[in-house]
Amino acid sequence: MSILVVGSVAFDSIETPFAHVDSVLGGAASYFSTAASLYSQVNLVAIVGSDFPQEHLDFWRGRSVNLSGLQIKEGKTFFWQGRYHMDMNARDTLDTQLGVYADFHPVIPAEYRDSELVFLANIQPELQMEVLEQVSGARLTVLDTMELWITTARPQLTEVIKRVDVLLMSEEEVRQYTEQASIVTGARQLLGMGLKYLVVKLGSYGALLFGADGTYFSAPSYPLEEVIDPTGAGDAFAGGFLGYLSTAMPQQDGRYAVDDIKRAIVHGNIIGSFTCGDFSIGGLRPLSLADVANRYQELVKYSHFDPDWSSASQQQSSANIEVLG
Amino acid sequence: MSILVVGSVAFDSIETPFAHVDSVLGGAASYFSTAASLYSQVNLVAIVGSDFPQEHLDFWRGRSVNLSGLQIKEGKTFFWQGRYHMDMNARDTLDTQLGVYADFHPVIPAEYRDSELVFLANIQPELQMEVLEQVSGARLTVLDTMELWITTARPQLTEVIKRVDVLLMSEEEVRQYTEQASIVTGARQLLGMGLKYLVVKLGSYGALLFGADGTYFSAPSYPLEEVIDPTGAGDAFAGGFLGYLSTAMPQQDGRYAVDDIKRAIVHGNIIGSFTCGDFSIGGLRPLSLADVANRYQELVKYSHFDPDWSSASQQQSSANIEVLG
Repeated sequence: MSILVVGSVAFDSIETPFAHVDSVLGGAASYFSTAASLYSQVNLVAIVGSDFPQEHLDFWRGRSVNLSGLQIKEGKTFFWQGRYHMDMNARDTLDTQLGVYADFHPVIPAEYRDSELVFLANIQPELQMEVLEQVSGARLTVLDTMELWITTARPQLTEVIKRVDVLLMSEEEVRQYTEQASIVTGARQLLGMGLKYLVVKLGSYGALLFGADGTYFSAPSYPLEEVIDPTGAGDAFAGGFLGYLSTAMPQQDGRYAVDDIKRAIVHGNIIGSFTCGDFSIGGLRPLSLADVANRYQELVKYSHFDPDWSSASQQQSSANIEVLG
Repeated sequence: MSILVVGSVAFDSIETPFAHVDSVLGGAASYFSTAASLYSQVNLVAIVGSDFPQEHLDFWRGRSVNLSGLQIKEGKTFFWQGRYHMDMNARDTLDTQLGVYADFHPVIPAEYRDSELVFLANIQPELQMEVLEQVSGARLTVLDTMELWITTARPQLTEVIKRVDVLLMSEEEVRQYTEQASIVTGARQLLGMGLKYLVVKLGSYGALLFGADGTYFSAPSYPLEEVIDPTGAGDAFAGGFLGYLSTAMPQQDGRYAVDDIKRAIVHGNIIGSFTCGDFSIGGLRPLSLADVANRYQELVKYSHFDPDWSSASQQQSSANIEVLG
């Protein structure tokens, strides 16, 4: 099942407390495409300048990323510069140069129109809406956003949220958008806008799933000895999430089973963890599904616990305690 | 199996963005005793002033908290004033008045000496060491600490860490003590000091367990619609942790099974979650083990996921992918 992604392809210059890199491949759609193409064909819609190296295009072609929707325009590719502090869950933007991206309007090629899964990376809500109007038949639409659009394009973002199935937000974004201190209350407010699911990304703490059907799921993060660069981890999370779903069989009603949605989130966390292991897409390039499966098995071991609330001895000695579970 | 706790009993004045209370019952040992006495007898060692209300003593006596080791001295009970911001994972101390606590030295009554489980709440490391010297036969010793002692009494704290079985620390405390950005690296350093287990408390994100035997476990937090006051949640966590272990049967080698340590952490998270539901010990007072069992069953549902990394259809279509798990 093929996956459509619309988002940014960029050059990033990144500083962490331990290292820095200049003008490496970045952008949400780059991370997403590299991650999701591990599972299925990815149909990419983005824009790059005439300075964009052929080697990246060759790499994606070699991974079944369809580039028919990649616009190449005379000028410079989108550039972003950022800095992380000791707590790598937060960062500052130092510079942004839009380049050819300034005039970008997504055009979905005819051959992409049957993409059943759609990922709207964190571009302007107006552009996300332009995409939705071109892919009305999608089985599942997933929306990412960022603080900038919550602040500067809230009404437009609201319209997009009302049109999609799944929204990905960081905890801070949920608080910012809903103006609720409680994530649980904020999640209920967002689900009330018509979403089927809200996924709250918690960075190094994993992710939470809230479903309109009352589903709640807390997914563990994969423990990392070292975080080289968390840039793109959220985009790669989305790639693992939709990548896994592209391999799962929808139910007879056309929807995915909750167990598959949960599994997709664990895949997302794992793919995100690999992303943090190197700058740019370096942590994703060498990955195979066997690597993902390995971390999946580890996460099962790391997070599952005995479903009985008391030990056997306790159960015997306290048989008179009524357990309502 | 009875549990010894040595720590502070205090009056707290607390402000949150939504409410405030003045001079309510607080102190680590208060939260711990109230929580752990849900499971087993608690032997309390602490000091209060002549201003300490009889009603609190009556309440604890009614919950099988042994008060033989509670010193009552002429003067004022320890007082702490704090303020929380919108993110209730962080707080400021506004005032501290030691009162009779200034001259406190823990004395373990003879009738407490057979306590098999010992909790050293976050008092000065010198006092914690005085306790350890009086309870040499304990089965399991658990240490809590705080930023203040890492800053002002690091050598003494180090000596205590080397003497106990389990250390509880917040993520920030691990970073501060080990000077490592990575919690995984910091945990390894702490385990190298002789601990059997390190428990990293993540506030609203749950808790992590690191074992000297290589055990790693990520325990989910119980999702709360509303946090009234997180004060004491860490102390109550310890009460649930040791409370559960007091009901578990040690193995033939005298140690607890890893499955019981994991379960104890889930109990700790649950007891901590109830604590956040009210000021002071208001969230713990009405609790029964059936309430704990209920949230335990919910957490199993909220955090367990399919142990197979791929759906059945995927497993068939990708049978040629070698899974190393």
